[in-house]
Amino acid sequence: MSTYDEFIIAVKDIHRLQALQGHLGWDRETIMPEKGASSRADMLSWLAKEAHGRLVSSDLGRMISELEGADDLDEDQRANVREMRRSHDKAVKLPEQFVADYARAKSEAMMAWQEARAASDFSAFEPHLTRLISMTKEKIAYFEVEGTPYDALLDEFEVGMKVSDYDPLFAGLRERLVPLLDRIMAAKSTTPDPPWPEGLHFPIEEQTAFCTKVSEAMGFDFKAGRMDTSTHPFSAGLWPGDTRFTTRYDLSEPFSCLYGVMHETGHALYEQGLDSNHSYTPRGAAVSLGVHESQSRFWENQIGRTPAFWKVVLPWYKEHFPDAPEWDPATLNRIANKVSTGYVRVEADEVTYNLHVMLRYEIEKQLFNGDLAVKDLPNAWNTMFMEWFGVEVPNDRLGCLQDIHWSMGAFGYFPTYTLGNLYAAQLLESMAEDLGDIDALVETGDWSPLLAWLRPRIHAEGSKMSPSELIEKATGSAPSPDPFLRYVEDKYSRIYGL
Amino acid sequence: MSTYDEFIIAVKDIHRLQALQGHLGWDRETIMPEKGASSRADMLSWLAKEAHGRLVSSDLGRMISELEGADDLDEDQRANVREMRRSHDKAVKLPEQFVADYARAKSEAMMAWQEARAASDFSAFEPHLTRLISMTKEKIAYFEVEGTPYDALLDEFEVGMKVSDYDPLFAGLRERLVPLLDRIMAAKSTTPDPPWPEGLHFPIEEQTAFCTKVSEAMGFDFKAGRMDTSTHPFSAGLWPGDTRFTTRYDLSEPFSCLYGVMHETGHALYEQGLDSNHSYTPRGAAVSLGVHESQSRFWENQIGRTPAFWKVVLPWYKEHFPDAPEWDPATLNRIANKVSTGYVRVEADEVTYNLHVMLRYEIEKQLFNGDLAVKDLPNAWNTMFMEWFGVEVPNDRLGCLQDIHWSMGAFGYFPTYTLGNLYAAQLLESMAEDLGDIDALVETGDWSPLLAWLRPRIHAEGSKMSPSELIEKATGSAPSPDPFLRYVEDKYSRIYGL
Repeated sequence: MSTYDEFIIAVKDIHRLQALQGHLGWDRETIMPEKGASSRADMLSWLAKEAHGRLVSSDLGRMISELEGADDLDEDQRANVREMRRSHDKAVKLPEQFVADYARAKSEAMMAWQEARAASDFSAFEPHLTRLISMTKEKIAYFEVEGTPYDALLDEFEVGMKVSDYDPLFAGLRERLVPLLDRIMAAKSTTPDPPWPEGLHFPIEEQTAFCTKVSEAMGFDFKAGRMDTSTHPFSAGLWPGDTRFTTRYDLSEPFSCLYGVMHETGHALYEQGLDSNHSYTPRGAAVSLGVHESQSRFWENQIGRTPAFWKVVLPWYKEHFPDAPEWDPATLNRIANKVSTGYVRVEADEVTYNLHVMLRYEIEKQLFNGDLAVKDLPNAWNTMFMEWFGVEVPNDRLGCLQDIHWSMGAFGYFPTYTLGNLYAAQLLESMAEDLGDIDALVETGDWSPLLAWLRPRIHAEGSKMSPSELIEKATGSAPSPDPFLRYVEDKYSRIYGL
Repeated sequence: MSTYDEFIIAVKDIHRLQALQGHLGWDRETIMPEKGASSRADMLSWLAKEAHGRLVSSDLGRMISELEGADDLDEDQRANVREMRRSHDKAVKLPEQFVADYARAKSEAMMAWQEARAASDFSAFEPHLTRLISMTKEKIAYFEVEGTPYDALLDEFEVGMKVSDYDPLFAGLRERLVPLLDRIMAAKSTTPDPPWPEGLHFPIEEQTAFCTKVSEAMGFDFKAGRMDTSTHPFSAGLWPGDTRFTTRYDLSEPFSCLYGVMHETGHALYEQGLDSNHSYTPRGAAVSLGVHESQSRFWENQIGRTPAFWKVVLPWYKEHFPDAPEWDPATLNRIANKVSTGYVRVEADEVTYNLHVMLRYEIEKQLFNGDLAVKDLPNAWNTMFMEWFGVEVPNDRLGCLQDIHWSMGAFGYFPTYTLGNLYAAQLLESMAEDLGDIDALVETGDWSPLLAWLRPRIHAEGSKMSPSELIEKATGSAPSPDPFLRYVEDKYSRIYGL
């Protein structure tokens, strides 16, 4: 057997163990009986240990080194060697005891966060967050990165991205988004958004049927996937032919479910479009969180929150919700795009969303590069929120306790949400150059050309290139915030008549 | 680390891999999207290979040998060593290539059987069955058993049971069951069973609610388990705190679902009652198929098919099926116990059920010990069926193609179904000695003493002893067919006024 063949068997074993974790994670969030929690945690940690042991094995290290010197590998094979080198090197740098302690600290922090958030009591979460940050600093030290410590974290979630990339990018965005938000708020004070009537009822079965129809129209293959319910919607590309996503329901309005489904279907379409010839290898896996998020945001916002979309789905909407108010596509679209200075990121519109992300980015930078003490975090949060949103945060539940990420030790993760928005807008512009007026195309009700455009350019490429190389190859330009700013300024100027 | 500690880590790893197979198997039968089939098969075979590799490892063999010589092990530890010796020895005797070929032959045979059964065409299944039998004979040769070849197969499913045990047992049963059946058929010809009206409708949601109530009353903990739907009902004790069973629905009557649920809940209660201090080891696992079946048959038949049961559930029945005919507990019980010389084992009553099993046993014996050729199987089946049931088998779909087991290479499995019936009756008699009149107890609607009696005597014991030792310890007598015969003769004499 060639070294590459031997290498790929080891690689697939690791990825199979990870796929099993993914499957059990999906099951836990959707259907697991509550008393299964403890043995599930035990099994997940066993699988993680098994995968980690194989990842750090010196045998794998030897094969990677050997293959790095080989000159007969094709592009796909080289991508696998490159990605496994990255994962292997990171894993071997962390002492086994540290990995175990860190995992335990994270799971304790997550439980503490849940309680602290429910009680809106930051002090209950503070010692856990302090410990996680201190352990994360220890982790950064093991990695021995160049640049600032926070760079090590950013790179974990979007390879190649550093503070020196994000800082100017975010500054440029903020410079134009804050004034845009001001103008929108001024317009709203004279022409308020249409109010959503109280007392409406949207039955779950009808929401399910309506959203399934939309998901199918986007191209999701329900013979190779499922839609289920969970507290926090997510998408899981379990393995070839089996991609599952979830949604949740608000009985008083259909938008949470609809846009949740469009968002998760966007993620799931990426997973269904991966090249199954490369399953269980990095080459066959999604390249980054930023690119993944570009797929969900593309469908959710750039397709789903348009008058063209509402023209197509209005008959389905009326069929499933015959008692809903008689609104035309423009009004429904206006409601779906309502800008507000709300506290909660996950409910934010496209204008304020990135401001939410940047706020967390600025705080994380201070926590890791600067000298923000954990105890001062709520104050830092609330001060910045007032400055950017002009709104006082009433409590920590709606402020610095709202997101789960910090309790999971996922520092450096948030910026990928903004990258997703930027990549999506850049893809949309490029797609329009190839396919013509996208709104006109959406209005036909046949959205298959959109998916067909994304498939070879993004989905099937897996991790062949780095995220930025992939975007550049797909669009002809390096990643840039300009398409997003053009898109958002144009869209909201029209909606709010600016 | 002591050798035993090292041993138990290896044992748990093997059982974790098997638990993962169980989980993925459950998922496949209940909710998997159809295009997931191929990657699921791939993952299951990978898990099987991983588990097999660890089971045959010489390291494990060395530890077992060492521990067999240790004199400081307690009863639980000795049980684990004993059971792992058995599994290890069997596994190492089979060449790896044979295991792989056999697995492929079985999965090909299963597909062929499905088609052959649908078309009622034995000739399409014949070559596959021939190959499986020949490979099974090869397997027996590897095992180098004493006694007759078929003994090796019987022992695989119920340790310690041989042809020399089953032959007299079955002969004794047949001797009294065939005349009992004749008397019942005669009684039916004068007083027919109440007919089931056509055109009734039992909605799925109501059947689910009704059966859930019964399952809960039996003691199933829905916080530590689930009920779902599948083509063929089954129960899966996935891991501690997570036991799942399935059912299916017949919209024209509620009995299929009800007794399916009671049967599977019986299995599931066994799983929920295993000692979780011994999870992922043989000591913490169910001891045998026969004992497992005793738990399902106990609840399904000896509790569920009684007038006392119907007295308790009649109000629930009326609540969920208000349009069903107004029948009293005695009539409902009579319908639920209708004896018939039908062709299909899984729909058989308690009198004919064991005759169905024996027919397969006699044929298997001839296939492995005697000289029945596969091509003559349908004829052998139909001839014996006519002799015992007095009925002509109209086609192979209702005859020798009806069961899945042979296509799975599960020769020697069927007799455990009868053992389950015998063990159940023996447990019932013994329980009555301790708890008094069981019917009177069932009639109170509080069935918890029944479960409380079974828990320490059967469930919590896991595989500490052999199946027959377990039954003997629980009931004070060695396994015997007499309690079953007393039970069945008494019950049906009363029902049919013999």
